[in-house]
Amino acid sequence: MRKTPTKLADGRELIYYDEDESIDRSILDTRDLAHVSLTAEIRHDPLLDEWVIIASHRQDRTFLPPSDECPLCPSRPGKPTEVPASGFDVVVFENRFPSLSTDVTTVDDSVITDEALFPRRPGFGRCEVVLFTSDHEGSFAQLPLERARMVVDVWTDRTRDLSEIPGIAEVFVFENCGEAIGVTLSHPHGQIYAYPFVTPRTATMLESARRHRAETGRSLFADVLASEQKAGQRIVQAGRHWTAFVPVAARWPLEVHLYPHRQVPDLPALTDDERADFAALYRDVLQRFDALYEQPVPYIAAWHQAPVKQDRDLAYLHMEVFSVQRAIGKLKYLAGSESGTGVFINDATPEVIARTLREIELPET
Amino acid sequence: MRKTPTKLADGRELIYYDEDESIDRSILDTRDLAHVSLTAEIRHDPLLDEWVIIASHRQDRTFLPPSDECPLCPSRPGKPTEVPASGFDVVVFENRFPSLSTDVTTVDDSVITDEALFPRRPGFGRCEVVLFTSDHEGSFAQLPLERARMVVDVWTDRTRDLSEIPGIAEVFVFENCGEAIGVTLSHPHGQIYAYPFVTPRTATMLESARRHRAETGRSLFADVLASEQKAGQRIVQAGRHWTAFVPVAARWPLEVHLYPHRQVPDLPALTDDERADFAALYRDVLQRFDALYEQPVPYIAAWHQAPVKQDRDLAYLHMEVFSVQRAIGKLKYLAGSESGTGVFINDATPEVIARTLREIELPET
Repeated sequence: MRKTPTKLADGRELIYYDEDESIDRSILDTRDLAHVSLTAEIRHDPLLDEWVIIASHRQDRTFLPPSDECPLCPSRPGKPTEVPASGFDVVVFENRFPSLSTDVTTVDDSVITDEALFPRRPGFGRCEVVLFTSDHEGSFAQLPLERARMVVDVWTDRTRDLSEIPGIAEVFVFENCGEAIGVTLSHPHGQIYAYPFVTPRTATMLESARRHRAETGRSLFADVLASEQKAGQRIVQAGRHWTAFVPVAARWPLEVHLYPHRQVPDLPALTDDERADFAALYRDVLQRFDALYEQPVPYIAAWHQAPVKQDRDLAYLHMEVFSVQRAIGKLKYLAGSESGTGVFINDATPEVIARTLREIELPET
Repeated sequence: MRKTPTKLADGRELIYYDEDESIDRSILDTRDLAHVSLTAEIRHDPLLDEWVIIASHRQDRTFLPPSDECPLCPSRPGKPTEVPASGFDVVVFENRFPSLSTDVTTVDDSVITDEALFPRRPGFGRCEVVLFTSDHEGSFAQLPLERARMVVDVWTDRTRDLSEIPGIAEVFVFENCGEAIGVTLSHPHGQIYAYPFVTPRTATMLESARRHRAETGRSLFADVLASEQKAGQRIVQAGRHWTAFVPVAARWPLEVHLYPHRQVPDLPALTDDERADFAALYRDVLQRFDALYEQPVPYIAAWHQAPVKQDRDLAYLHMEVFSVQRAIGKLKYLAGSESGTGVFINDATPEVIARTLREIELPET
């Protein structure tokens, strides 16, 4: 896999990842795009003790364009897109409408008068888009296995690079898929956010793991995995190096966690074999999701990696993939209980969902 | 206001709250409804250290029925509904498809094999529906002021009663409004959940308040309110006893918090004057929401009350009301960043939203 970094017309970085190492990547972005600094800030919520990103300019971002105007397809004569080339394998570039950027200015200084109670900081970080394929149709589940492996390698490479930016505390690799969860562009792609702080869910998981280690001397994540492997009834599928299961206290009607069989902090710490095994298992799980209702389900796939500079031995790389689809034509909404109190109500029984997913017979691909 | 408790055909409790104290409430529910025990359990997520409710039977609940089959309207000859009477003011009854119930059995005992790592308990609690009016059309914002005050009084009464059920730890009064947040019945109504544990958001807020009190000797909530009152720019509207403001670190494109001017733990601790002032201010805020896009916005309104048995002096009753509507035809979704890491991204600047809401001129009602 060859990596070719370049710049878009407005100065944003774009990186080609190519299987064919001989391909010419010297073509330039000819669009007349002005350079724009992000105006965003991160404000602290004193009640929930969490950082919230305020990025007001994003209201204007591209919203479900017709497919012949997809900005994520390769460029064609007279139709320049975000990718100047006429074809590509995997491409990563800085989001044109980011929530965080290394090139950021804060909003008007006068808006917060009480900095002691309401701390704030610039919206520093980085938001990247990862194009899985040049093909506008399809999804990760439908990628050839070789391409799925390549995407995992690209995620790994980006994690490595973004972890080296001074001030980045956590690298979050994820995919939003489907209009039902608000995806504004349907071309198969994922995203990466590099945050300047450890995120709330990561902090909470690490706190639980720290407590468990103090009490038992063991890894909480490893204990969860071992318990699931022993019980068996929530296992969806397993590979040589990874196991996919529905968690005991699943929050979503479809929710599967994928754990590697040994503790590693992040994607770069995996072996090639482990990455290859993950790609196959993950694609298998997504294919089961799509087979469940005989139509693609909207989903969010979220990598949980260790913070860049702390708790590297306490964290345990894993992926959580979940869907709001609770039946054909029915979605799970986060309403009062979830959004008001944080109490999730799941209408699906994890053991039943796991068995249903496990028993699906997938065609060979 | 007269209170008349009765029972529905399947044994669920229904309570009439009437302005007219002479009205006859002896009519019985004639439907052939079998008594059903809830099968639900609450499972502990060891990673996020939170309880999740697993209530699988709810998949079959009534979903957007045509308005002439609304189960929340008064009964008519040949069309019995959840309310046996031919008319009513405010009615409260136990949810037919609850997530929690005092009459509950757990799911199959064999599903969890590792109780030490995965504690679970019955789905004990109570879920109530609060009908604001017998009129199928409309919303809380459109209630006459007197009725809005009566609903606040009913919320207060229910909080008092539910707090007395042994095993209840927190009473959560809320409203989900609008199809966009998954409301399955459009008749104006709210809900009340009585949880057997202190909910995650309440626990987190109390932790922050405890830390702030240890550091400063003061109430965190009172300090936030005072700071907002001093700054002024995020104030939407104020009454004699309450102030409504957009929080500094708002998570939602429309989000307003309503704080009373003195610390009280819950609704029953308010004076009559304070309750009346709240009703007027809250209705005003909801009318501003609806005026913003010249159409009703979907919203979630969430009362934050003190736990029933702890931290009564540390908590501070307030309401948070928020909407996913970020522009006409555009909704905010909780995607990867929010659902994966817990980091909210708000495309709206709180000061701008507050000014916009503040400057709306409402017609006299």
